[in-house]
Formats: sequence, C-alpha cells, structure tokens
Amino acid sequence: MFDITIIGSGVAGMTAALYALRSNKRVLILEKENYGGQIAKSPKVENYPTLKTISGSELADKIFDQIVDLGVVFELEEVEHIDKSGETFTIKTNYNTYESKAVVIANGVKPRMLHLDNEEKYLGHGVYYCAICDGPFFAGKDVVLVGDGNSAMQYALMLADYCTKVTMVTMFDKFFGEKSLEDAIRSNPKIEIIPNAVASALHGEDYLTQVEFTSTDKSKFTIDTNALFVAIGQVADNEKFSNVVDLDKAGYIVADESCMTRTQGVFVAGDCRVKNIRQVATAIGDGAVAGTGAVNYINTL
Amino acid sequence: MFDITIIGSGVAGMTAALYALRSNKRVLILEKENYGGQIAKSPKVENYPTLKTISGSELADKIFDQIVDLGVVFELEEVEHIDKSGETFTIKTNYNTYESKAVVIANGVKPRMLHLDNEEKYLGHGVYYCAICDGPFFAGKDVVLVGDGNSAMQYALMLADYCTKVTMVTMFDKFFGEKSLEDAIRSNPKIEIIPNAVASALHGEDYLTQVEFTSTDKSKFTIDTNALFVAIGQVADNEKFSNVVDLDKAGYIVADESCMTRTQGVFVAGDCRVKNIRQVATAIGDGAVAGTGAVNYINTL
Repeated sequence: MFDITIIGSGVAGMTAALYALRSNKRVLILEKENYGGQIAKSPKVENYPTLKTISGSELADKIFDQIVDLGVVFELEEVEHIDKSGETFTIKTNYNTYESKAVVIANGVKPRMLHLDNEEKYLGHGVYYCAICDGPFFAGKDVVLVGDGNSAMQYALMLADYCTKVTMVTMFDKFFGEKSLEDAIRSNPKIEIIPNAVASALHGEDYLTQVEFTSTDKSKFTIDTNALFVAIGQVADNEKFSNVVDLDKAGYIVADESCMTRTQGVFVAGDCRVKNIRQVATAIGDGAVAGTGAVNYINTL
Repeated sequence: MFDITIIGSGVAGMTAALYALRSNKRVLILEKENYGGQIAKSPKVENYPTLKTISGSELADKIFDQIVDLGVVFELEEVEHIDKSGETFTIKTNYNTYESKAVVIANGVKPRMLHLDNEEKYLGHGVYYCAICDGPFFAGKDVVLVGDGNSAMQYALMLADYCTKVTMVTMFDKFFGEKSLEDAIRSNPKIEIIPNAVASALHGEDYLTQVEFTSTDKSKFTIDTNALFVAIGQVADNEKFSNVVDLDKAGYIVADESCMTRTQGVFVAGDCRVKNIRQVATAIGDGAVAGTGAVNYINTL
C-alpha cells in the first residue's frame, strides 16, 4: 500500500512528490514515457525563476534527482484505470495493480500538432507551441504564427512586442475569440494576417528555414522563417479517469486551485487541470498544492 | 510611463517581472525593504523544485539577477497610494510619483509573531513559522508547536509524520477548526497537547534550546527543544490598496487564480492574495499568471 500514487512525472507530478516525500509519505510515480513531461522536449528554458538558462531536460533531471534522493518509487507503466473502494484506491496499469490511500493525476497535455512530415524533427528547432516560453528567443526577427483563437491572438501580440514582423496565417477569414484581441491585432502594424491557408510542409536542414502553405483555392506559397509558432490548441487525455473526476468539454479535469476533484483523495495538478496559463511555474504551484492536499487528506483518514 | 509597476519584490513579484520583461515591457518594481520577501529570511530551503538545498537569500539573489539582466527598474520606496484615471495608474510612494499602464500587487504577508524578546534572533535558528518548509529538518527530533487553528493542526500531523514527539501548546482548552483534524490530533500517540498556556520566553545561545510557557493560572513551565513552530496566523497589509481591490475579512486581496482584481489592470500575486497554500512554488505560479495577465491586458488597451 502506497500513501500517494502520482500519475505522470512532469514538473507538476514531481513537485507533488517532493512535497509528499518531505512529509515522510510513501510515494509511487507511474509514468508512461519519460520523466519531465512536455518541458523535457524544450532545448532552452529561460522563464523558470532561479535558472537563467537551462535545457528542459536538465531542468527535469534536477527535480528528478531531488525526489530520488528522498526515496520516490518510480515505475515506467501506463495507468489504465483507477478505482476507489472504501478508502483504498486500486490503480491498474499495463503491467501491475497498486493500492494507494490517495492519488494525484498529473497527466499533462500535448500541444495539438500540425501533423506534417518532419514536424517532430523541428521541435525546438524552428517549430514551437508556446510563444510565452520561446518567443523571446526570436526578438528582432520575423516569425510566423498559425492559429485563430484567443491564445493565438495573444501570442501574436506578444511576439509583436519584440519581433520585427509577425505573419499570422489563419484557416478561415475570421478569428474565433475576443473582439478586443482581434481589434488589437488588426491595428498592429507589425502583424500581417494571411487568411484561408494551412501549413502544408516544413523545410530546412537541421533547423527550419521555410514553411509551405496551401490556400483554400489549392494554390501554394512559402514563407522563409526560422520560427513557426503553432497555436491550434492542446490535447488532453483524461477520459480513462472519468469515473473518478469530472472533465470539461475539452477533456481537462475539473478542479479549482485547491486541486481537489469530485472524489475525495483524488487530486489533480498541472496542465491536465482546467486553467488558463500552462507554464512550468504554474505546474509547480499546482504540484505543491496537490502534494500538500494529499498529505493533509491522508493525515485525517 | 511604465508598462507594469510591481509592488513588492518577493518571489511572486520578481516572477511577474520576469514574465513581463521577457515580453519586452518596461517594468518598475517598488520595494519597501529588501528583495526576496519572506523566503529571504529562511536559512535553508529544500522544497523548491530544481534546487536540492539553498538558503532563501541565495534563491532570491538568483531570481533578482535574472530580472536585472532583463532590465528591470528597481526602486527602494514604499507605496502609499494607487489611483486610476482613464487607463493610467498613478502610484505614489514616500519619495516619488510614477505612472503605469498596469499594476501587480505582490505585497506578501508576515507571519504573526509571538512578540517575545529575542524572537527575531532565533528566526531560522529554532523559531519557525512554516512546518511544511522547515519541519523536515527536525525528522527524528522532538518539536514544540504553538497554535490552535486548522493550519496549526495540519502542521502537528505533518510534524508527527517524521518527528519523535510533537508537543502542541494551545491558548485555551479547545481548537478552532475542523473536527476531523482535531480527532486525528487527539488520537495520534506522538502528539501531546498542553492546553491553557502561552509562550512567554525563549532561551538559548545562538540557537534556541528552551521555551518558557506561562499557564492561565500564572504558573510557569519550560520545554527543552531546538524547534518551536509558531502557527498563530499571518498578517496582511493591504488596507492602502482598498480603493482599487476588494479585501477579505483577514485583509487578503480577493482574486481567483486568474490573479485579476476588481479593477481592470490591477493584478495580485503571491501570499497577499486569498489562497490556502502559501509557498514559494505557489507564489511563482501566481507571478507567472499575473505577469502574463498584465501583458495581455496592456496589449489590448
């Protein structure tokens, strides 16, 4: 029997573990891929307080070292089902079954990708999904942005703060979000909007150098750039937990900043939770809250 | 005219600055004492993800370096008043008046102290206000805890997870909080409750070695310990901002996790906000949210 089982070992899950381990709880982390989550794929992180510049994988290594020192049990297994009976949770993975007094779901999200050939190859080398994180590396350069929702529009305005030019390509001849954002974009001289087109190919040796687009009328055009920002949404993967937590329409786990779900003893932390700003900093905040919440929950069982 | 003025330079305020500066905004920080806030007084921090062990002042130095590199304007002045006229904020300090497009209040809180002679001297040397943070340094030792609310009870249970004995001294013969917590405390063999007494003196050379208590009947007794945890509440100091933000009964600034207050363009981050878990990790989460929120707000003015 574990005290706390954490599903996912991104920064949120690892921080929840850090807090629980310091309270002398027996902590199991179940991870289906590798520890670090989404940030581990980022070659350069410059918005984590205390670390001027670091790769995402090094950042993840540092937290992993902390929790290994404190005695975390880490298993590379994919969780298939959580069940609660009395005050005991049973967690079934593709290999084993575990029992635990509390559960923290820190399952993360994935950015919605363009699904183009070579897209994976250019991750962090010309293709980016977070302008807040990676935009500032292109100060004084021309960048291209794909997307038409609120996040895309906010990204366009942020990028225009320091980039020479932002070319924004939208699938239709309209935006899907707040009027004030659209007004700000349309009146910003650094932002050019190209409607009715989708990215259809990526080119470049090791780094991206050119993006090909296909218009609604099937004609093609290219834009030379070293930075394509993709802001077409994110994909949550929480359906398998829907017997113990509520999901919103987009599949995120419903919980306020207390990180408590509708099932006592099930907490949620990080990007998989309903929230607006998904950053390492906010994932860590969630991890501290969920870890502390789980400890307090167990202590009053 | 500044883009964003941040009141307070604890980790929340500095993180908000980091996010705003990376978006190329002109950022002013106004600080009345020293940067770092409450954590800067902590000799040892072991719950900040990525940093195994560090002093609070070094942790603060690292973030301060980051924002100085990015061009923050830092002034040691105390804010007396914020006023909004049209879309411009006027911020009056004890020395100057500044104009700004947005404001982030990151004013922090202070722990409520016992107000005993030498209490300041023992800060981080035997007297602690955060069991989540400092409790684990006393694993395998006897500790003393003063307080009778929910936080004090949660702290007692956490400390009992790894300390040999927790002596909990309460002012009256009752607790002021959840019944489930009280039940857990009263049934925990490692927790001894001594009611009807208050701490009246602290003794020890460089480090605390003994606490003297005075009972309701005026009799005195002492407990030998190297760790006194004080959990008698915190003190907010936000009254002067009440013309632009709502305060709750305890004086905290009302805002949900979006960090938006009732005045457009005024954000709040960190311990001074209404919330349950006040940790460096959660302050940094707030800083990222408030900094990003302020940038988005300015970009649509």
